[in-house]
Formats: sequence, C-alpha cells, structure tokens
Amino acid sequence: MTATVSHPFDQAVHLTPEPDGTFGGQTSQDYANMVGPFGGVTAATLLRAVSRHPQRLGEPLSLTVNYASPIGDGPFVITADPAQTNRSTQHWIVTMTQDGVVKTTATAVFGTRRDTFAATEIAPPRAPEARTIAPQETPEFIPWMRNYEMRFTAGSFDVAPSGPANDSTTTLWVRDAPPRSLDHFSLTAISDVFVPRIMLRLGRVVPAGTVSLSIYFHADAATVVEQGDEPVLATARSQHFGAGFADQAAQLWTGAGTLLATSHQLVYFKA
Amino acid sequence: MTATVSHPFDQAVHLTPEPDGTFGGQTSQDYANMVGPFGGVTAATLLRAVSRHPQRLGEPLSLTVNYASPIGDGPFVITADPAQTNRSTQHWIVTMTQDGVVKTTATAVFGTRRDTFAATEIAPPRAPEARTIAPQETPEFIPWMRNYEMRFTAGSFDVAPSGPANDSTTTLWVRDAPPRSLDHFSLTAISDVFVPRIMLRLGRVVPAGTVSLSIYFHADAATVVEQGDEPVLATARSQHFGAGFADQAAQLWTGAGTLLATSHQLVYFKA
Repeated sequence: MTATVSHPFDQAVHLTPEPDGTFGGQTSQDYANMVGPFGGVTAATLLRAVSRHPQRLGEPLSLTVNYASPIGDGPFVITADPAQTNRSTQHWIVTMTQDGVVKTTATAVFGTRRDTFAATEIAPPRAPEARTIAPQETPEFIPWMRNYEMRFTAGSFDVAPSGPANDSTTTLWVRDAPPRSLDHFSLTAISDVFVPRIMLRLGRVVPAGTVSLSIYFHADAATVVEQGDEPVLATARSQHFGAGFADQAAQLWTGAGTLLATSHQLVYFKA
Repeated sequence: MTATVSHPFDQAVHLTPEPDGTFGGQTSQDYANMVGPFGGVTAATLLRAVSRHPQRLGEPLSLTVNYASPIGDGPFVITADPAQTNRSTQHWIVTMTQDGVVKTTATAVFGTRRDTFAATEIAPPRAPEARTIAPQETPEFIPWMRNYEMRFTAGSFDVAPSGPANDSTTTLWVRDAPPRSLDHFSLTAISDVFVPRIMLRLGRVVPAGTVSLSIYFHADAATVVEQGDEPVLATARSQHFGAGFADQAAQLWTGAGTLLATSHQLVYFKA
C-alpha cells in the first residue's frame, strides 16, 4: 500500500478558506528564494485563491501580480474580490497581506472560452528535443530551483561562468520536479522561472526582483491537461534595461508547438 | 491677445479632487468610441488620478488597466489607494465606478529612477520619416480618432479594403491632433490607438474590445518632455488569437530610436 503524498507545489499553494471569506496560506520552505518565497509560487497562490472562490466563473484568462513588499516566511491571508461579473468575463482584485500589511496585489480576469478564429503569429524558439539535453544541476542556495527540472538550450541561470552577454535570451525545457501534471497554477509559476535578465547581460549576480508580472493564458484547461507532465519549452528576454528597471517578455510552449501562455514582467535592479 | 483653451485631451482626463479623497471626472465626447469612451483615455485618466494623489511618490513605472464593464457617457468616480510605499517604488490600486458599479480596475507602480546600466535589445520598426507620409483621414463614426494625427506605414485601421492578412502588424507615426507635448498620460492613451488586431487579420470589422491593458514606461519624465509634440513611432501585433481572445504587443518609440514604452493587452473578440 502506498501513502498518498501531495506534490510540494500543491503543498506550497495550499489554501484554507476562512469563515470571513478570505483564504489562509503559509510560505513553503521548498519554494524559498534567497529572500522570501519564489515569486512564481506567490502568483500561483493568488490565482488559486480566485479559482477556489465560490463566485468564480470560468477559467483564468489573465493575471497581473504586483510584488508590493517582501513576503516573510510564515502565514499569509489572501482576499479575492469579484469586482465585476459579465456574461463571459469576470474581473478580480486580489490582495495578500501579512499582519495586515499588503505584500502583494493582483488583478485577474477569468472567463469563458469558445470556438473562434485561431492563429499564432509567432514561432516557438528553435531547441533540440528535451530528452537530448541533460538537466542542469541547481544551486543549493536557491531552494525553489530544486523543484524544477531545467534543460537549458540558451542562457543558463549560471551566469558568472559565461560572462557579460549582448543578448538576454534564455530558452529551456522545464517541468516540475518530481514531475507533476501541468495546470494553470504551475504554468503561472513556470512563467517566472527565469532569473532576472540583468544578470545574464552583466554576467554576474546583482540585486534584482520582479515588481509587476502579467500572464496571458492562451491555453484552455483541456490543452493544459493534455500537456501532462511533459516539459514546457520556455523562452524569455528583456526588451529594455535602464534607470533601475528592465522588462522581460516570455513565452511558454508545448513540445508540439502550441502557445500555452505569454508573460511580461517589470524588474527592478541595481547595477 | 490669445485666449488659453486647454487641449481636448486635457479636458478629457480632467479630474476634480473630492473631499472624501476620490476624484470626479466626466467622459468626453471628443474621445468617444463606438461604444463608451476610448480605452486609452480611460487608462490615462486612471494614471492621472494616481499622479494627482497627495501621497504619490515618483513617476509612473507600470500600469495595468482591466476594462470590467462598459463605461457610460457621463460622470465617474476614481478611487486611488496607495497599497504599499517602499523606498523606491509605490504600489497603487485604482478603481473607476459609475453609480457605485465598478467599471474599470487598475494597478499602478510608481517609483524613482536612477542611473544604471542601460541597453535596448529590440530595434524600432523600419519606417519612412513621418513627414514623407500623408496623415490618414479618420472615419467620422469613431470620434476619438479625430484627435490623433496618424501616418500609417503598415496595417492601416481601414481594414476592409485590404482584405484578410496573415500578419496583424500595424506601424504608424502618431501624435495628438492638434499637436500637444507628450507626457506619460498621452503616452498611455497612444499605447491603445491600435484597432483590435483581429480586424486586420480578418479584413473586416468584428465585435472586439480590450479586456486588460498593461504598459511599462521605459522613458522618464525628461525623455518624454524632450519628445515635445513630435510624432511617436508606434507598432503593434498579436502573438496569438484563439477561443475568443487575442493578445497584442506594442512598442512606442521616439523618432530618434529611444524606446518610450512597451505595452500588452488581452482583447476579446467574436469571429
């Protein structure tokens, strides 16, 4: 007989509904970053609060998360308010607090998908098949990375040996470790697996962190489920660095070339 | 002696501080869309509420606007709450209501810029000089377009004569009409001057509207002021269409090749 042990990701995004309509959660040591939790898991947890809300309609369409102040290790409270519900879309305002202090704000749009014209104007990055690339060993001092199997084809996170670069592109095959079937929550977290692009440009570790992260979910639940625990092809680059801030544009693809999500973030840095 | 008449844009984004800390405004017939006001002006008005708030620190860094439900012609109320203030960034939650109903939600990050490493990894689109291109005549039935001088170099809004296309790219030189010196508010509005990309792809007008719009402001106030009333080089395309939704990625450049802002939006459509 095998005991059922939930995946560390599911433990990290676990929420308890409280009588006042809020959700209680707890940061996970498995997904700790150098300071506070991995921002991708924070984003996934906020999305999960909306998904678990009794008034939620439909699937996630978009999510914007603002990292307002550092999250401390320990418990947090999430409030998810349905600001407006329409026929096919629903707009949410979400706030994460610790001891009454706002740590993260978010807005999310959920909605109903239907058959329409479909086309993808961008192409997936060229990359060898995942099985032909060895997984990168992840550093001990960034705990959350141990929960991802990463097979880099361009721009490893291990920036120092490479030195400065003229291009901030990273492309990798990535999935949860141990493997876990993809859902919109893990897809959210995976959209934030890229180390700040400024470190790739400079070839060294500098203070940096996400200020605001947006994700557009192009894949419906069925497409995400179909992906199973196969690696996602993820690519990201900055368009501009300057005055202490940089953007990052990312795309997440299935191995068959279906666009799962596009994502953007604004990152502060000191360099 | 010349009477001072404020620009229609300044009238459209005009706000009156109320004793309870909210701001009162009024939709402008000059910036009317086919239904409700032009979304770019709504976004600019929300940004302006934060800028006028007595607790506001620094300049706009990012803005996400969610178009929750149709805005009716007439008065509206904007509430801007500083959710968290840090040393160099400040996070805002903004809501626009009419008769107590939430019409638009937004989050904004303001902050302080400083000298750092700077680089731009993308290039402006190839385009002939603005003065060599005739301004496009704008249609009577879209009032807000009359307030922009648009010189298209690719993908005019006049979609029907062109027929279906395999590429949704539009590139144009654009400035306020009559000319007005650029600021972060007009830059916000200009980031939304593109007609929904689905219409370019299909070569016909279909029901479509922005669900969520994000802007990253790469230019500081000095760079924006330097632009004066010269045309902005604006380009946009969709990365993906499907299941009733499409994204749009846009870039706004100075004539000298400085990246002013990047923008993304999620658009619903019926087709």
